[in-house]
Amino acid sequence: MQSKWWGWGDPSKRFPLEQSPRFWPFLEAQIGPLAEQPTRPVSREEIALPEPRLTPDDRTALQMIVGREGLALDASERLHHAYGKSYRDLVRLRRGEVPHPPDAVLFPRTPDEVQRVLDLASARGWAVIPFGGGTSVVGGVEVPPHLADRLFLSMDLARLNRVLEVDAVSLTARIEAGILGPDLEAALQAQGVTLGHYPQSFEFSTLGGWVATRSAGQQSNKYGKIEDMVAGLKLATPSGPLAVKTLPARATGPDLNQLVVGSEGTFGIITEVTVRVHAIPARRDVRGVLLPSFERGVDLIRTLVQEGLKPAVARLSDTAETDFQMAMRKPPANAIQAMLETLAKKTLMRGPAAASPSRCMLILGYEGSQMDVVASWERAREVIREHEGLNVGSAPGASWLRHRFELPYLRDTMLDHGVMVDTFETSAPWSRLMDLYEGIRKATQDALERDAGRGSVMCHLSHAYHDGASLYFTFAARQTEDALAQWHAVKRAATDAILAGGGALSHHHAVGLDHAPWMPQEVGETGLLALNGIKQALDPNGCMNPGKLMAHDGAATRPVG
Amino acid sequence: MQSKWWGWGDPSKRFPLEQSPRFWPFLEAQIGPLAEQPTRPVSREEIALPEPRLTPDDRTALQMIVGREGLALDASERLHHAYGKSYRDLVRLRRGEVPHPPDAVLFPRTPDEVQRVLDLASARGWAVIPFGGGTSVVGGVEVPPHLADRLFLSMDLARLNRVLEVDAVSLTARIEAGILGPDLEAALQAQGVTLGHYPQSFEFSTLGGWVATRSAGQQSNKYGKIEDMVAGLKLATPSGPLAVKTLPARATGPDLNQLVVGSEGTFGIITEVTVRVHAIPARRDVRGVLLPSFERGVDLIRTLVQEGLKPAVARLSDTAETDFQMAMRKPPANAIQAMLETLAKKTLMRGPAAASPSRCMLILGYEGSQMDVVASWERAREVIREHEGLNVGSAPGASWLRHRFELPYLRDTMLDHGVMVDTFETSAPWSRLMDLYEGIRKATQDALERDAGRGSVMCHLSHAYHDGASLYFTFAARQTEDALAQWHAVKRAATDAILAGGGALSHHHAVGLDHAPWMPQEVGETGLLALNGIKQALDPNGCMNPGKLMAHDGAATRPVG
Repeated sequence: MQSKWWGWGDPSKRFPLEQSPRFWPFLEAQIGPLAEQPTRPVSREEIALPEPRLTPDDRTALQMIVGREGLALDASERLHHAYGKSYRDLVRLRRGEVPHPPDAVLFPRTPDEVQRVLDLASARGWAVIPFGGGTSVVGGVEVPPHLADRLFLSMDLARLNRVLEVDAVSLTARIEAGILGPDLEAALQAQGVTLGHYPQSFEFSTLGGWVATRSAGQQSNKYGKIEDMVAGLKLATPSGPLAVKTLPARATGPDLNQLVVGSEGTFGIITEVTVRVHAIPARRDVRGVLLPSFERGVDLIRTLVQEGLKPAVARLSDTAETDFQMAMRKPPANAIQAMLETLAKKTLMRGPAAASPSRCMLILGYEGSQMDVVASWERAREVIREHEGLNVGSAPGASWLRHRFELPYLRDTMLDHGVMVDTFETSAPWSRLMDLYEGIRKATQDALERDAGRGSVMCHLSHAYHDGASLYFTFAARQTEDALAQWHAVKRAATDAILAGGGALSHHHAVGLDHAPWMPQEVGETGLLALNGIKQALDPNGCMNPGKLMAHDGAATRPVG
Repeated sequence: MQSKWWGWGDPSKRFPLEQSPRFWPFLEAQIGPLAEQPTRPVSREEIALPEPRLTPDDRTALQMIVGREGLALDASERLHHAYGKSYRDLVRLRRGEVPHPPDAVLFPRTPDEVQRVLDLASARGWAVIPFGGGTSVVGGVEVPPHLADRLFLSMDLARLNRVLEVDAVSLTARIEAGILGPDLEAALQAQGVTLGHYPQSFEFSTLGGWVATRSAGQQSNKYGKIEDMVAGLKLATPSGPLAVKTLPARATGPDLNQLVVGSEGTFGIITEVTVRVHAIPARRDVRGVLLPSFERGVDLIRTLVQEGLKPAVARLSDTAETDFQMAMRKPPANAIQAMLETLAKKTLMRGPAAASPSRCMLILGYEGSQMDVVASWERAREVIREHEGLNVGSAPGASWLRHRFELPYLRDTMLDHGVMVDTFETSAPWSRLMDLYEGIRKATQDALERDAGRGSVMCHLSHAYHDGASLYFTFAARQTEDALAQWHAVKRAATDAILAGGGALSHHHAVGLDHAPWMPQEVGETGLLALNGIKQALDPNGCMNPGKLMAHDGAATRPVG
């Protein structure tokens, strides 16, 4: 299935807003009145793409490698591969603004075909953009406008989609990079194991994309970020193939796996990854816990993690996001149900957490053996009590699990109604986390109000480590006339606040085109020198995803938008 | 305290062999009769070092940076910094063979002084070898003979030895790189935390050295290898300082921390590291467990680790090493004690593990909260039973903890008696571990016998991961006439067997000079290209520890010895 060209995911799916009648009133109370009549994207037929710039000889040479059906020049494929799925991408797509699609889309069948295309591209001076699921939200798969005079190929790895080998003793699996999340888990679980990597994009993103961007899944507390899961890999580069041996640990120079993880296609194309997998957990127990404040919740998660009681899921919404979730809840279907809910609330929802105006919802879950889950929850309950938390049962956990991949669909509906909505994320040591949170929230809110008069910012903590955690922000406002300039001003204010507070430029969305201007500040001039040194060695002609990640061509530091 | 110039550690210490009267008979039964008269190293006065090649202007320029007392040109310091502590090093030192000492030894006081020395060295074309504790066993700190026409400086970081900051909330500590293990733990434990990193060299090695070589401590199962502990760092390079932000996780390109960890001084000099620390465990419980075979022991450890029951210590000796340990035990002091021991053995030591001729000793330990340790041991006991293991109590655990840093002293005594003794290590996925073990053991045994007629090889598994483990080998034979050629033949056979079996070229000793010839095979030509790309960017004039790690000068691939 090809996903929506103008929005998120399955074209036949919509976010089930009819179950949340309080959503629009809640949103309008936050950001102001919205137009009643939705606006729709332009029709695909209205979008005229520039002609592909491949000569007949170029086409023949490529077809010799990937076969006739492996080279697509049609408008549909080129449009589909022109952008990722960021707010900025969808704004442009809905308007039909696609001035720089890739000249062609390739569908190689083997790592060898990938390698041969790179050899050809390097020889002919073409640029190549690796394409997995195309869900980048940082401009990772688009042709950078300032480099658009070059011929660009999009290399779609959809056909490298097999689980090649499961080592049930070592608990590793060798898997082709183009496999989508659901196919990967289906194949692994059929053999009794799981990767346990569930980013929000899970249904439409690929293993290779996760590795290239340093992705984090929603159970990262237990299974790690993707960089922790990689035991070996294969990368095709213009300087030849790189194969990193599958090993549990080594002392043979800087870890080449970690040199590839996060390289965002700028060194080469990941064709195969050997990942660490796990026995399918016998039990999962995910519950809702109400905390009297965000700060108490942060402290609770820190205590659990530093004690070694790592939850599989620990997702703490701040008060604004908790209010949003409450507004999204299905109202009682009838008077009896309403009465029962009120009664339950009166009986159960007592104590500081329920009464606090700054209450925050935490989704906390353990998974593993029956015994482990019971023991972990036993100790967790004590820590929750110490933090004046209120266990509100498994309904919020079940609801979150059921709907966790659906929110991106809501964005499409909000765009229909003229709402700017986007997310960004960071990470920091525990000791700086609350200051960083406040700094970012204020800077983002101020930026929203400067342009749109009003706006809404909410946040959750969703990945916790021994020494710190990530913060994930969502912001919304009414679109103003120049929607991209509006977005860019907010993005700049938020990102400047992140760096001022010592946060990571990105925790799991990666750098792409959108964050590249801040990379000199994030990793320093010497850090960029080092990354460019690898680039120079593996891709001397600068074919691989130019303009992304680092300003290796001196041009990616210009402002985006 | 300056360590022995010709051997291991504290000059006033010897391995207490008088407590092990069965040691020499056991060893001679294994490798043949040894000379009764020990040979001693040459006296220091007999060693004539070549004159330092610094001009008066060079000296002045260096003294302007590090002060008069920061520049040492005397024979004692230059000798002390000429080699690491490998068998090959000690053989040469004992003979007084020091043809290529560094021209000078520097003792910078600040990261800025380190940076300025590198700037000067880069401008004048000098080579710089970073020096921490000088305990490298792979030739990491010596002047490579084939590059000895260059002027070499040894940069000793002994004066950068402070714990700068402990963040008790984030559980991180910012520490200067030159600090020795005991000083580091003393300073941290005074603030209630521990790093938990105890390599065998702990007493004489430094934080910077651990990071530069990807060191592993004896509690790595719980606390991780050093690469897992690094949250941020500072590196002085000839292209300028690199500061990696302290963060729990990030998605901003390849992890620059991991690009520095394992770089073995070839990119620059690590001046500061922010590490993840831990609350001091309330309880530690280390016991001996006898297994009926090495294979059953390996399976036991794998089961524990993959179930998430990570022991702090899991050190499984093969049968040969178990026999060695038995021979090292203090005999009963009198007839009554002997009778009691026999009685205890008869009562306790029953079952397949005690009776098996291939029995193996496992040192298994948990540490953490009282509750965790009890719960972990409870489940571990079940797994031990399933593997026909026999819990032999805490005496072997206590003995191992007491003596764990002492074995290197025994090597000096063995060298006195003409014994070649060395160690090497590797790692592999669980599914390949037993085949790798057998392959290495056979290749090493054969190589020992080819030259010396007889020899002894023993092994333990000491670092266990979800997907594999490390193997640590010790081999011994009588020295033959050309001791270095003898050693080199065994080293080559063992290393070839490691690579043939898919093992890591090194798990925690690093590459240095000794393993560099195998690096093209280990990481591939493209892998070396990538590493050299970083080198080229950070150290364009090739000043930093040339000849080590990678064959960036095209010369490190020549055989060592």
